[in-house]
Amino acid sequence: MIQTPYLLFLGDAPDPLAAKVAQGIRDWRPDNCVGQFRMDGCKADMKIADMTLEEAKAAGAKTLVIGVANRGGVISQAWKKVLVQALEEGFDLASGLHNLLRDEPDLVAVAEACGRTLHDVRVPVVDYPIADGVKRKGKRVLAIGTDCSVGKMYTALALDKAMRDKGMKSTFRATGQTGILITGDGVPLDAVIADFMAGSVEWLTPDNDEDHWDIIEGQGSLFHVSYSGVTLALVHGGQPDALILCHEPTRSHMRGLPGYALPSLEDVRDMGLALAKVANPNCRVVGVSINTQHMGEQEAKTYCADVEAKLGLPCVDPFRHGADRLADALAAY
Amino acid sequence: MIQTPYLLFLGDAPDPLAAKVAQGIRDWRPDNCVGQFRMDGCKADMKIADMTLEEAKAAGAKTLVIGVANRGGVISQAWKKVLVQALEEGFDLASGLHNLLRDEPDLVAVAEACGRTLHDVRVPVVDYPIADGVKRKGKRVLAIGTDCSVGKMYTALALDKAMRDKGMKSTFRATGQTGILITGDGVPLDAVIADFMAGSVEWLTPDNDEDHWDIIEGQGSLFHVSYSGVTLALVHGGQPDALILCHEPTRSHMRGLPGYALPSLEDVRDMGLALAKVANPNCRVVGVSINTQHMGEQEAKTYCADVEAKLGLPCVDPFRHGADRLADALAAY
Repeated sequence: MIQTPYLLFLGDAPDPLAAKVAQGIRDWRPDNCVGQFRMDGCKADMKIADMTLEEAKAAGAKTLVIGVANRGGVISQAWKKVLVQALEEGFDLASGLHNLLRDEPDLVAVAEACGRTLHDVRVPVVDYPIADGVKRKGKRVLAIGTDCSVGKMYTALALDKAMRDKGMKSTFRATGQTGILITGDGVPLDAVIADFMAGSVEWLTPDNDEDHWDIIEGQGSLFHVSYSGVTLALVHGGQPDALILCHEPTRSHMRGLPGYALPSLEDVRDMGLALAKVANPNCRVVGVSINTQHMGEQEAKTYCADVEAKLGLPCVDPFRHGADRLADALAAY
Repeated sequence: MIQTPYLLFLGDAPDPLAAKVAQGIRDWRPDNCVGQFRMDGCKADMKIADMTLEEAKAAGAKTLVIGVANRGGVISQAWKKVLVQALEEGFDLASGLHNLLRDEPDLVAVAEACGRTLHDVRVPVVDYPIADGVKRKGKRVLAIGTDCSVGKMYTALALDKAMRDKGMKSTFRATGQTGILITGDGVPLDAVIADFMAGSVEWLTPDNDEDHWDIIEGQGSLFHVSYSGVTLALVHGGQPDALILCHEPTRSHMRGLPGYALPSLEDVRDMGLALAKVANPNCRVVGVSINTQHMGEQEAKTYCADVEAKLGLPCVDPFRHGADRLADALAAY
């Protein structure tokens, strides 16, 4: 568990997209962000207070989160200078970079000397159990997609926000690096050992109040041959009571798999539900989330209306239309 | 890749069952077994020549394989004495034990000094790729089960033998510890990192002759919530052209999951085929393998005949009836 609140480290981000992790934290957990730390030449801006390490510390920040991708997979000396100083000032560090903080001997040495923690959220730190399939209390909803990167995390975070706004009890459960940095904890599912995948999802979504919803971040797709096993571990470990289908309509083939066509929403509904019922016979599909970022306003509206009519389920783009109707579907569950 | 042939180490096996790994090697790859090494009090016997380390070395053995489970998860000093001497005599060591050879400092030191290799087959040693889903040449058959431990490995090994006896080209592809020790290589799939599961199965079953069959060892079950993700990685990474359904009819619930009923063979057929067609639209189910070990002779016969009539597929217990009819089904593919 990463200590909040954060100081967001944007480094020397060459463009706003390089800082998308910081943007995710800023968008979804603004209360977790005390300020931002930008170096010379930084081209990203979260529109929050620029702070020195000292100022952020005084404002209560506990962890410096690396919210930016590094160039060439190397943690530069310019970054190092800031990171070392942050440890010395009493910050923990958190990172989702491929190259790990723990593999940098200088950071390890300083962290140890200062009694601080290095969080590499790509690496599991828990010994997860084997899944036991026992039914847990409380409710769970999982977003499953026609493909990878169709907006499952965004859908889950938007749904969580809409539910809280309605006074419902909900918790976003992160299963990927960005989600973990946004919320401060979760399971880096793609890095878990095969035998423990489903068990890690059970661990992530324990017993809760009967009217509480865990909103489980989806990964991959049952129809994406590279990652489908990860997705099925989510379906069976998560024991979802409800599924939300996610889709991006303009994609010509499965991400990274030329020659593989996308399944239809009906395919994903039928396959997802049949598999989910193995772990939870009461599971049902409650809504559809469409990522319409490559469509015009009217086109998006028409597309969602068509899907809604065809599948008989509320269908929205949570970014364009909000996630209220998905939250309503869960409220009515 | 473990060097063959082997000297089978049976240690102080308290009963024959403790030596089931050695038995598997002896049953399926007798040519890999130069002899057996038994300590005082050993209650297992592979019915092959008892040999000293020197005799086995002279007879050409390259690797001492630990074919027995250890008591209490500790490699005893009595074992150590033999293992150290084996390294000194020029043997590599191979083990599927939970506690790893590489975690024993004395074995590591002696192996290094003698230039020998310690093979812990529970631990992947290859950096597997992410699956790319590209169609490979040659044919592949995968055994999928209603549950774990219903006889998928046995079915695959029996099928491999039957196909070779018919002059067909086939290779058993191990995906578990025992299978890896039997054949000398494979992928310990349950220990692979989630993102690389399907890629490891692609790696295991590369391009081959068009008339060659890879017989992929199955793991878990699509209906076993603890391990289903591993199974789906086999289905999508393996791109099987053919599936064989495996079942043990007397089980009252899924292994380790009280309260979870077994799926029907029809359920496994339909779900398995629908998922397999994502990676290989030509996939079909070609036969059924029933583990009738808890049934009488006549009961087993009747059961298989009933399944055969109901599913319209050849149905045998490969242990009782041989795997010839399954091999014929692949020959006719």
